[in-house]
Amino acid sequence: MPQQRTGAVKQITSHANPIVKEIKGLVAQRKHRSQSGLFVAEGLKLATDALEAGWGVRYLALGPEARDNPVAQKAAATAKARGALILEVSTAVMSAMTRKDNPQMVVGVYEQNMLGAKDIDPTGTTLWVALDRVRDPGNLGTIIRTVDAVGGAGVMLVGDCTDPFAVEAVRATMGSLFHVPLAKMSKDEFKALAGKWPGTVAATHLKGAVDYREPDYSEPALLVMGNEQKGLEDDMAAACPTLIRIPQVGQADSLNLAVATGIALYEIRRKHLEL
Amino acid sequence: MPQQRTGAVKQITSHANPIVKEIKGLVAQRKHRSQSGLFVAEGLKLATDALEAGWGVRYLALGPEARDNPVAQKAAATAKARGALILEVSTAVMSAMTRKDNPQMVVGVYEQNMLGAKDIDPTGTTLWVALDRVRDPGNLGTIIRTVDAVGGAGVMLVGDCTDPFAVEAVRATMGSLFHVPLAKMSKDEFKALAGKWPGTVAATHLKGAVDYREPDYSEPALLVMGNEQKGLEDDMAAACPTLIRIPQVGQADSLNLAVATGIALYEIRRKHLEL
Repeated sequence: MPQQRTGAVKQITSHANPIVKEIKGLVAQRKHRSQSGLFVAEGLKLATDALEAGWGVRYLALGPEARDNPVAQKAAATAKARGALILEVSTAVMSAMTRKDNPQMVVGVYEQNMLGAKDIDPTGTTLWVALDRVRDPGNLGTIIRTVDAVGGAGVMLVGDCTDPFAVEAVRATMGSLFHVPLAKMSKDEFKALAGKWPGTVAATHLKGAVDYREPDYSEPALLVMGNEQKGLEDDMAAACPTLIRIPQVGQADSLNLAVATGIALYEIRRKHLEL
Repeated sequence: MPQQRTGAVKQITSHANPIVKEIKGLVAQRKHRSQSGLFVAEGLKLATDALEAGWGVRYLALGPEARDNPVAQKAAATAKARGALILEVSTAVMSAMTRKDNPQMVVGVYEQNMLGAKDIDPTGTTLWVALDRVRDPGNLGTIIRTVDAVGGAGVMLVGDCTDPFAVEAVRATMGSLFHVPLAKMSKDEFKALAGKWPGTVAATHLKGAVDYREPDYSEPALLVMGNEQKGLEDDMAAACPTLIRIPQVGQADSLNLAVATGIALYEIRRKHLEL
């Protein structure tokens, strides 16, 4: 068995340090995240979640407050043992890296995990959610959090979706990013997958003829949700045998995407959720 | 019958114009909104909603694109007839006012409407939602949107809540702000109201012993939701006879506040919502 590579500890006080610049780039631009396969998650809670779930960690930056915090020190020891570089930084550097006036005491840089369509085996799972061109990072993160809460198997990102590894999306997951598998795929890959799906495939749609409370949602269920502004594309809807509708009685035109997904998920899992 | 005061039309090209500065202040600071009783809502859709719902309008700013748009021109005529000052502004001024690179073609300044505890008569209503110290403007706006969708009577803001008239909150309502009454009150006022409430008073709570699917939610129902981080305060919970819980099976600690509210609202209205 090869010896595990162990990380080091490095003090950083200069904003011009190349690692500080690298982290700033990961926070600011999707391009940097895509090219490096890395992303930033703020906070000790998310660091603990990431490390417990076994995610690869490249850097763990600790602000001054983290040095006397036993949970932060334990996270740093775990990250170091897994080969991460531990950065001891000033509050000013932490603030610059994360572009926040009141930065968290711990900021981690982790390796992205992303499945493809071919990795998805619905057998034995309960529920997947597919999102068609989701645009808002807060909605995406919140949906990942809700999928975790109902014990879903994962989230498919179909077509041109917002980046789940953007700081706003990661923050909205509240740590569920590290527990819920994500899979990225083209529309054609999704359609092929939906075509051979063994359980119920249900999409919310304005033209949906079926009340969302009616289907039996046989497992594994696949819930498909469309874009915030435009809803589900026609050819995507055509690939979904059951078009459901969540009724509304007021003057609102529609529900928020994350709220609609939450209502549908709790309905799908209605018979399986217990206190 | 006194003659209706009719508004005027004014061209603005200077960023230093006092009205431009006033609108910038309303966008940026709660203090300016509170002192003036005014707020900003971006977009033609929200202008149409506000005017149809009869809200007081102080200014309607039209960018260059709005001049050839019949819906925008109709909104301007309605606003002018109600005494508003119509501002014809450049894209640069619109951008400066709203602090956005790609501003909307119409931006309105409206008069705030806010009820107090004494204005609330639950008789004959179906459902109210009370929020205890809600912090996130996006959550608040999204909850107002969902209350509209289920035909709720209004939203109570208890204690120190985020400003529903902040631009982010208004945007998240998607126009429902103009249809859903809001009432601001102290904790003591809320407790007095809850004590004499004629229907079910149900609060979501970590210690909630009742599955959210169990109560009969007799009308008028009152759903009480706690703060994003801290949940419901103990004395608030003590004022609510039914403490409900939305079950979770995954590793997530909790649901997003707007999602949890949506799930509870659709459960409460379950028997009354039809396609």
